[in-house]
Amino acid sequence: MKSKKNHSLKFKVKDMDIATGGTLVAILNTKDAHKLDLHSGDRILLKTDGREQVCILDISESQKAVPEGKIGLFEEVLKKLNVKKDSAVQLKFTGKPESVKHIRSKLYGKRLSYTELLHIIDDITNDRLTDIEKTYFVAAGFVNGWNNEEVVDMTRAMVKTGYKLKFSGITLDKHCIGGVPGNRTTMIVIPIVAAAGFTIPKTSSRAITSPAGTADTMECLARVELPEKKIKQIVKKAKSCIVHGGSMNLAPADDKIIDVEHPLSIDAEGQLLASVMAKKFSVSANHVLIDIPMGKQVKAKNWKQAKHFKKMFMLIGKKLGMNVKVVITDGSQPIGNGIGPFLEAMDVMQVLKDDVLAPQDLKHKALIMAGALLEMTGKYRKGKGLKVAHEILESGKALKKMNEIIELQGKQKKVKIGYYQHIVKSTKIGRVKEIDNEIISKIARIAGAPQDKGSGLYINKKIHHPIKKGEVLYTIFAENKFKLGLAKEFAKKNHGYLIL
Amino acid sequence: MKSKKNHSLKFKVKDMDIATGGTLVAILNTKDAHKLDLHSGDRILLKTDGREQVCILDISESQKAVPEGKIGLFEEVLKKLNVKKDSAVQLKFTGKPESVKHIRSKLYGKRLSYTELLHIIDDITNDRLTDIEKTYFVAAGFVNGWNNEEVVDMTRAMVKTGYKLKFSGITLDKHCIGGVPGNRTTMIVIPIVAAAGFTIPKTSSRAITSPAGTADTMECLARVELPEKKIKQIVKKAKSCIVHGGSMNLAPADDKIIDVEHPLSIDAEGQLLASVMAKKFSVSANHVLIDIPMGKQVKAKNWKQAKHFKKMFMLIGKKLGMNVKVVITDGSQPIGNGIGPFLEAMDVMQVLKDDVLAPQDLKHKALIMAGALLEMTGKYRKGKGLKVAHEILESGKALKKMNEIIELQGKQKKVKIGYYQHIVKSTKIGRVKEIDNEIISKIARIAGAPQDKGSGLYINKKIHHPIKKGEVLYTIFAENKFKLGLAKEFAKKNHGYLIL
Repeated sequence: MKSKKNHSLKFKVKDMDIATGGTLVAILNTKDAHKLDLHSGDRILLKTDGREQVCILDISESQKAVPEGKIGLFEEVLKKLNVKKDSAVQLKFTGKPESVKHIRSKLYGKRLSYTELLHIIDDITNDRLTDIEKTYFVAAGFVNGWNNEEVVDMTRAMVKTGYKLKFSGITLDKHCIGGVPGNRTTMIVIPIVAAAGFTIPKTSSRAITSPAGTADTMECLARVELPEKKIKQIVKKAKSCIVHGGSMNLAPADDKIIDVEHPLSIDAEGQLLASVMAKKFSVSANHVLIDIPMGKQVKAKNWKQAKHFKKMFMLIGKKLGMNVKVVITDGSQPIGNGIGPFLEAMDVMQVLKDDVLAPQDLKHKALIMAGALLEMTGKYRKGKGLKVAHEILESGKALKKMNEIIELQGKQKKVKIGYYQHIVKSTKIGRVKEIDNEIISKIARIAGAPQDKGSGLYINKKIHHPIKKGEVLYTIFAENKFKLGLAKEFAKKNHGYLIL
Repeated sequence: MKSKKNHSLKFKVKDMDIATGGTLVAILNTKDAHKLDLHSGDRILLKTDGREQVCILDISESQKAVPEGKIGLFEEVLKKLNVKKDSAVQLKFTGKPESVKHIRSKLYGKRLSYTELLHIIDDITNDRLTDIEKTYFVAAGFVNGWNNEEVVDMTRAMVKTGYKLKFSGITLDKHCIGGVPGNRTTMIVIPIVAAAGFTIPKTSSRAITSPAGTADTMECLARVELPEKKIKQIVKKAKSCIVHGGSMNLAPADDKIIDVEHPLSIDAEGQLLASVMAKKFSVSANHVLIDIPMGKQVKAKNWKQAKHFKKMFMLIGKKLGMNVKVVITDGSQPIGNGIGPFLEAMDVMQVLKDDVLAPQDLKHKALIMAGALLEMTGKYRKGKGLKVAHEILESGKALKKMNEIIELQGKQKKVKIGYYQHIVKSTKIGRVKEIDNEIISKIARIAGAPQDKGSGLYINKKIHHPIKKGEVLYTIFAENKFKLGLAKEFAKKNHGYLIL
């Protein structure tokens, strides 16, 4: 530890070989900490040539864990600073960022300006705020609400602090606000629209609380984690891509906000709107179709809520100069037959092959969405879009486009359906009255989805289907016997079907 | 790692020699975590014979940091579970506690019942909630507010989840809601009241954001961290004590709530009221005097706010069956001459010795408070209390009582005034118009208070004092040359005095 005039100090890195999954932790020996009057939980700034990172300090009481003169770094910090064992880092004292004051203002009910929001979003993006501070931001916004200007400003701030994929001319995008298991229309819509000659660079997310996200599902067929340069090349060639947006730093503040929303399953409307629109804006989209499923267990529970979302999306779109169209769809039951990454990917490929066994609900919904997007370009009159989408799908052009995308992104052949299976049968005769989306999702997750890509459910019966005693409702698939056991146990208590 | 039928698993402890200062962290090797489908940030339950603790999981990617079959524990967890290197602990899966639902309800604006609040406070007390969850609790209560019933219920829940010191008959207590540097009346009031024959067991806190708390100051004279049994013995003999409440588990949820309020300097009124009253209730106090300083830089900024606090304290006192009296006092400038633990202890002892050099403002305020307490007992008529307090102080009985308390708690002789000194002089002629409490506190803290007990300020000039150019405003004391330098530098930019 060498003291410098400006009170900055040098330490040698010790790799702690520990990952927190989020929080950026650095550790000093108690003697060094005492000399510097630093305490557990204090915020420090670490610098190397060209990089710097704010970390939270822990203290080591032994010379063994972290000796004097060394600084123990957790995996996340090593990565951020791009340092290794025995690298030198400079420690600087750092106070609370200014943005904490703005968060405090919001707690007191103040309306935040663009500059203040940019300040907060920038500090979140660069990991300068602690979990506690971020939580106050989310909670304050959630309870006090965000007005329309604040949502637009937050969207702009999220775009500004992220990476932008630049495309010129008509650029399309779609988004679903989620909550419906199996709803994998994206992977059908994109190849149709791209086959029609339009640019549609799709960045998708992974599942957080659901059994599969589009990125997880696409990953069963192709690589989805690609460098920005490669993505630009693919879109140039194929007019489209289906990649994971998370690694691309498009509006990266969003994921870091979700990290603190997740523990309380909070859906803060303002943040949802801002993050969706920021991601569209970041890929240069100028025509955006938004899918709002409506149903008891999704974000929009009724027409009133669905229409409110619709109004807000259109309003923000207008303020950002984007052409936004919103479709309100049926969110009452799963879409398609497969639930879980590989099972959903199978559904998608069946639809693209226009197989007779392909799930018709998924096909139908995807065609309507593709048709709407085609009409938004202004190249097709109203009513013509759906027809063109049909033709593209049935001619095999969409399948060809999908295969092109898969080849360009890098084909994935390793994923298989889960080996362990369990059939869930009806113990009643009647008709399917309701399917509980949350229970279906939960069973798929217990079986291992989305981590275990081959795990999930294959559904045989949908709402209104007549059903006999002993008939198959669905099959649970798992890659692991233990997890199949847990899923089976859960389904025994509640299989998620209401049969009357 | 041995699997058991009920999915509980045994691990051998590795002492990580790391302290977080709060969060309870346990680490598994990535291979064990993978087998158990556990991820960084997950909540796990660790059990030993008779103890259990919920922890947050981190992951080690190397066999070196945490090998398979071992579980790395941070200092806080080792202490909670009372385990050492190579002890065996059982790991159990644990979900989110029920209380998270109640916190979510509060975020949505619901009024919480006693049972729900007890649930939350119990989980906070037993470290079952993460920082993020606790922050939502504080933020939700702060923005949505707590009604009077909720505050009373929260007080009861805090008492219920903590330790109780039981005394019978008239038991007195006092509390100041803080914010005024040097305001060390407690250490004068207690010996006066006890010398008059009344029971007044005082548990005090340490400084959080100020340069000294009563516990820090008393610790310059005597031990303040004592086991409950010893405290009971001392109170039996001396009718009183002045100890640190923190280690006694009186309403322990409070400190854990403060941990998440601190980062945003939030003063949630409901929590403040509940925690103060819960601590009084926990020491069996039935007559409680509350000191509410009023001034620009303290909690009560004006008469309206001060009266609101007064109303709330009286109301909660009534609901809990306590006789509460509130005095609103001058919070515009420091009280006494010393700022910092040792310097404040010197002030106190000078007043108790009735030394001519003793700070008269401190003496005067302490006598008024002691008088009010004496009258609250019903043994003295209105106006008589102050007279009796005067007599006790001037007769030397209070000093004798203080010395008795010090002897019983264990005399402390090691603390000395800071060796390094710097005099701050006026560069102007005029009169002291204002003293900035926050700047004065900040300088004392930069000089090392409260950690360095001998550090702080000795004030020569108060509001209204005439002042010549070059006259001494105050002297900064520090135990450490480096810190004196920093304090000196800060005072050069802003010495905290407005002279007109």
